[in-house]
Amino acid sequence: MNQFLPEPQLLQALQWRYSTKAFDPNRKIPAATWAALQEALVMSASSFGLQPYQFIVVNDPAIREKLLPHSWNQRQVVDASHFIVFAARTAITEAEIDRFLGRVVEVRGSSREALAGYRQMMTGNLLGDGAKARIPQWTARQAYIALGNLLTCAALLGVDACPLEGFVPAEFDKLLDLTAHGYAPVVCCALGYRSAEDTYAAAPKVRFPVAEFFKTI
Amino acid sequence: MNQFLPEPQLLQALQWRYSTKAFDPNRKIPAATWAALQEALVMSASSFGLQPYQFIVVNDPAIREKLLPHSWNQRQVVDASHFIVFAARTAITEAEIDRFLGRVVEVRGSSREALAGYRQMMTGNLLGDGAKARIPQWTARQAYIALGNLLTCAALLGVDACPLEGFVPAEFDKLLDLTAHGYAPVVCCALGYRSAEDTYAAAPKVRFPVAEFFKTI
Repeated sequence: MNQFLPEPQLLQALQWRYSTKAFDPNRKIPAATWAALQEALVMSASSFGLQPYQFIVVNDPAIREKLLPHSWNQRQVVDASHFIVFAARTAITEAEIDRFLGRVVEVRGSSREALAGYRQMMTGNLLGDGAKARIPQWTARQAYIALGNLLTCAALLGVDACPLEGFVPAEFDKLLDLTAHGYAPVVCCALGYRSAEDTYAAAPKVRFPVAEFFKTI
Repeated sequence: MNQFLPEPQLLQALQWRYSTKAFDPNRKIPAATWAALQEALVMSASSFGLQPYQFIVVNDPAIREKLLPHSWNQRQVVDASHFIVFAARTAITEAEIDRFLGRVVEVRGSSREALAGYRQMMTGNLLGDGAKARIPQWTARQAYIALGNLLTCAALLGVDACPLEGFVPAEFDKLLDLTAHGYAPVVCCALGYRSAEDTYAAAPKVRFPVAEFFKTI
């Protein structure tokens, strides 16, 4: 049995988590904790294992200030200890697939020949008919798996977080120079520590009853 | 300090996790663990807190067998202890928003009047110009946050999982009757315990180096 945490503690961490409205601007995530969160993000699952995304960590306060008006002026952008922009690839190329397979060879010692079938499945699915239009949504979804993972991992480490979809991608792109490198900003996450004044911290979590979410057949 | 798990254990759980190719068909997730995973799924974050999804748990072996050919014959569909289809709403209506706000009133004791501004923001964003075309992708992304959360929570509890995007939505819909109720199947997740014969369990995890994922500015 490989259980890393008892059920009640897991649920306690998820209960403790909430989308933090006000961060304490004076509290920073310690380096060791941040390193673990980075590591955790990298370990996120993605389709084919392709990881078609990058994480832009905006530490520069001046850039954060510039992002603020393009984020509905949500103060989390400037007040949080860390601010991540999830950037998803806008296209998948054969070169990208081969870069990934090169990494498989490197890490697992597989041969290129042994991966030929896998390569064919990937190119068929990701470069075939209609794929081009589908890719940006597909890569964004992979980034959202990473976001879901991050939110849970942060809570477990006692780090507060707030995902943000409310921003203007075109303006973010101007400031972060993503499109030119084949990426688009799809979602953000502010991380740090809740302010003692954030009344939302104490508000009961609003969820529909379990029975309304689950349909068992 | 509210840390629920030390960093090394979290990373150990994420290292232990992999997309399980072969499940042990004889091992079932204990009821208490399954209840915790359900609870964890319900606690997933979603934009506005709207939770525009439902989780279809397919326990009936006959239905699982019927889903199999429409899932690239991936044996996880029939062999795993539990099989979840993530179904995302295909449209958001004013009624849906009001159902959610009704729940906020119920859980938090807020008044409808106090929520008027929030309601306006939601309707503007979710029912406004161009929203209709955007919604199915947006609800799917919310479901992917839940998927990312589930994968991490399962690993922490020592439950193996395999997310599946490779399935034919139209055929799944025929068998699960989702569209008629305003939902579309967007992704699946098989859960249970790895088979001792799954050689992928021991394969090193393929990831690009941390430095390639993160761009710090």
